[in-house]
Amino acid sequence: MMQTFQFGPWKIAASEIFYISKLSLGLVNYKPIVPGRMCTVVYVLVLPRRVVPRFADLTSEEVTDLFHSAHTIAAVVEKEYKGESLTITLQDGPQAGQTVPHVHVHLIPRRAGDWANNDDIYGEIDQKEKELAKELKRKTAAVDNEERKPRTPEDMASEAAALRKLFAQAENIWSA
Amino acid sequence: MMQTFQFGPWKIAASEIFYISKLSLGLVNYKPIVPGRMCTVVYVLVLPRRVVPRFADLTSEEVTDLFHSAHTIAAVVEKEYKGESLTITLQDGPQAGQTVPHVHVHLIPRRAGDWANNDDIYGEIDQKEKELAKELKRKTAAVDNEERKPRTPEDMASEAAALRKLFAQAENIWSA
Repeated sequence: MMQTFQFGPWKIAASEIFYISKLSLGLVNYKPIVPGRMCTVVYVLVLPRRVVPRFADLTSEEVTDLFHSAHTIAAVVEKEYKGESLTITLQDGPQAGQTVPHVHVHLIPRRAGDWANNDDIYGEIDQKEKELAKELKRKTAAVDNEERKPRTPEDMASEAAALRKLFAQAENIWSA
Repeated sequence: MMQTFQFGPWKIAASEIFYISKLSLGLVNYKPIVPGRMCTVVYVLVLPRRVVPRFADLTSEEVTDLFHSAHTIAAVVEKEYKGESLTITLQDGPQAGQTVPHVHVHLIPRRAGDWANNDDIYGEIDQKEKELAKELKRKTAAVDNEERKPRTPEDMASEAAALRKLFAQAENIWSA
């Protein structure tokens, strides 16, 4: 059995993880974003391994590890997805749009003209954040009533596996 | 003369700074946000002292210092402004909406119902980011053609002074 990790109240498979450090994880997202004028943009999440809801709950060591991870992942993901910039957002608490009560940083490669209005990306993030909780729940309940087709575990595993090769990893969580 | 610091190509006065660490600064913003149903929400920026445009340009030590600063400031600012959550955003590069070519993290206390749609905050951030460059330029050029009244230096200094007392500071940049 492949190892599982915790994302809020839900379990995620090691196959969906593309980055691991001592205290953080990099995770591919459940549904691709499809902006109007560009091809699919996949974006990633970076989270502490310990399940805590708020940024303020992190220890100093976790803050360092989380943002060093984000720093490393940002550079690689921007290059890999041929981005020119990055949107980096932490919805810290439910009133900021957070749906999964586990600190997570959104990292989205951006290109000129990818959204008609630059900040439309946040409508997408908001939408995807809502879907994130649903999708994690669905994976647990195996019920899917949503219109937009989520990615298959195979799709996600395949993307995570490709990304994984681009990073030095703190440990091997992927061998069966 | 009070010390000045650099924010991209522009100078900022120590009086507008409420937080200083070895490698980072906390700065009050130039214009308040006025959401539809709530009172004025003031938000703050956290930036590295060294002028570099992109997140990837930061050294490892700067990343640590910047996000430890953000971590410290986030908790205090949320409490001070009676927030329930925080929107934390880094527009990393012009295609992500960055207008001042100097890494800066937006920290905005959030409350239930402060914006009708949760992600409308990003329209505000986008707008304010545009105004930020203009306002920094205006302060240099002393020309103001904008509709929304910017805050006076006195307003900003007063807010920064109040916030300043809430933090342990790395050095005293405020004595004349």
